[in-house]
Amino acid sequence: MSETLILHGMGSPNVIKVVIMLEELGLPYELRHVAVFSQEQFDPEFLKLNPLGKVPVLEDPRLGIPLAESGAILFWLAERGERFLPSQQPARAEVMQWLMVQMANIGPMFGQLNHFNLVPAGSEPYAHARYRAISQSLYRLLDERLQANEWLAGAEYSIADIATYPWAGYLERHGFDGGEHPRLVEWRDRIAARPAVQRALVRANEAFTEAANRTRRAASSADLDRFFNRTPSVPEKDYSAVKNM
Amino acid sequence: MSETLILHGMGSPNVIKVVIMLEELGLPYELRHVAVFSQEQFDPEFLKLNPLGKVPVLEDPRLGIPLAESGAILFWLAERGERFLPSQQPARAEVMQWLMVQMANIGPMFGQLNHFNLVPAGSEPYAHARYRAISQSLYRLLDERLQANEWLAGAEYSIADIATYPWAGYLERHGFDGGEHPRLVEWRDRIAARPAVQRALVRANEAFTEAANRTRRAASSADLDRFFNRTPSVPEKDYSAVKNM
Ligand SMILES: N[C@@H](CCC(=O)N[C@@H](CS)C(=O)NCC(=O)O)C(=O)O
Ligand SMILES: N[C@@H](CCC(=O)N[C@@H](CS)C(=O)NCC(=O)O)C(=O)O
Repeated sequence: MSETLILHGMGSPNVIKVVIMLEELGLPYELRHVAVFSQEQFDPEFLKLNPLGKVPVLEDPRLGIPLAESGAILFWLAERGERFLPSQQPARAEVMQWLMVQMANIGPMFGQLNHFNLVPAGSEPYAHARYRAISQSLYRLLDERLQANEWLAGAEYSIADIATYPWAGYLERHGFDGGEHPRLVEWRDRIAARPAVQRALVRANEAFTEAANRTRRAASSADLDRFFNRTPSVPEKDYSAVKNM
Repeated sequence: MSETLILHGMGSPNVIKVVIMLEELGLPYELRHVAVFSQEQFDPEFLKLNPLGKVPVLEDPRLGIPLAESGAILFWLAERGERFLPSQQPARAEVMQWLMVQMANIGPMFGQLNHFNLVPAGSEPYAHARYRAISQSLYRLLDERLQANEWLAGAEYSIADIATYPWAGYLERHGFDGGEHPRLVEWRDRIAARPAVQRALVRANEAFTEAANRTRRAASSADLDRFFNRTPSVPEKDYSAVKNM
């Protein structure tokens, strides 16, 4: 079926948000697992899809080129589907602002916290505490934002919510208290109740979870080093915890 | 003049890109310095403009709400001005992808390298080397991208170039060699030759440089701690180098 969209990914928040979007729009799609722990994202074939060597990448026959960066993918799908991104102002600008809050702040900073949660416990106290503090302020920002607004960008569920939802799932795993973020937890529950979101999580789980566990356990120490952006000049770390996670 | 746009900022890349855009569009604007080193971004008045407590924020009477996140600001101005963001596909999606590469990758990661360049030399070798390696691969990505394309998103100068240009100025300060990134340097030169870019740098310099130096020197140690996202649980650092930078 040449109409089928192909999403290259793994079971990570930046991929899950796109799966949710595809389900929300009722588009026909196929999920292809990219084994990042064994460096498949640096294969020449994959780099042709995305020179950054990152997932997600969407191949949408209606667009004609492979598209990377989850925020750009959500934006393309929203404009094309005429949903989850208002055409009138200032609502449209607010959605883009909160999409950028996720893309430029929540994603990169939670990603750093995840990284420093994985390096051997206690070995990088300064960096760990830095990203924990930044993440905490971002969780607080979301909770406060959702006190006055039902959805992140205001009155309507939008690509800003879709982008942020999978990242908000880290709250407890990052060691923060759901009870102290009641609006954030309620918002998460409202999103989790959407049938499209439930279907997306089932599809992503089927396509990615088992495959990812397999490749992570099989990854060599050098693979993990590169996954964590090590170079010879970066001090040695023991990543054995990652293999067992 | 109620038509004048107001841009709240400082002399940092995320602000400069918006000043460039305002000049490219020939819009009437005023620059207002926000003293981030003395925590002005956390004043209740400023948090009403942007709950994240970050610059830039644009007040554009045509939009009616204050807008934060430089990528969202560029997008708003591009759509409204019908310039630097094509309306046809796939060119439009490519611009958004490369805008996101800047917003989600280059900005946050160069920002971390800047941070770990400022903490006392040698005190965080792992984190420093991590962000240096990530930044290096991003500079390489840009240089490779510009080998086959005159502009980041393809054939046309766009908001992706405007967003990335001020960040690309860090190449040498981050310790990399311009000679090893010839396409990146040529692209920078092409942008630097644009009259709008030259006007923007003059305006930003007048509005921000002296004011920023003053507030940085006046900032207390606690101010700098907070600026660097310290909490009581983050190990102590000596930020005196920052005051003299
Ligand atoms: N800003 C990008 C980030 C993509 C990203 O970080 N992807 C991760 C998985 S969530 C990845 O591919 N990591 C593999 C690597 O960096 O080598 C987006 O939102 O799409
Ligand atoms: N993703 C934001 C980042 C903005 C940002 O980091 N602004 C910095 C200056 S470049 C700032 O306001 N720092 C003050 C602080 O974080 O307290 C954007 O692109 O606008």
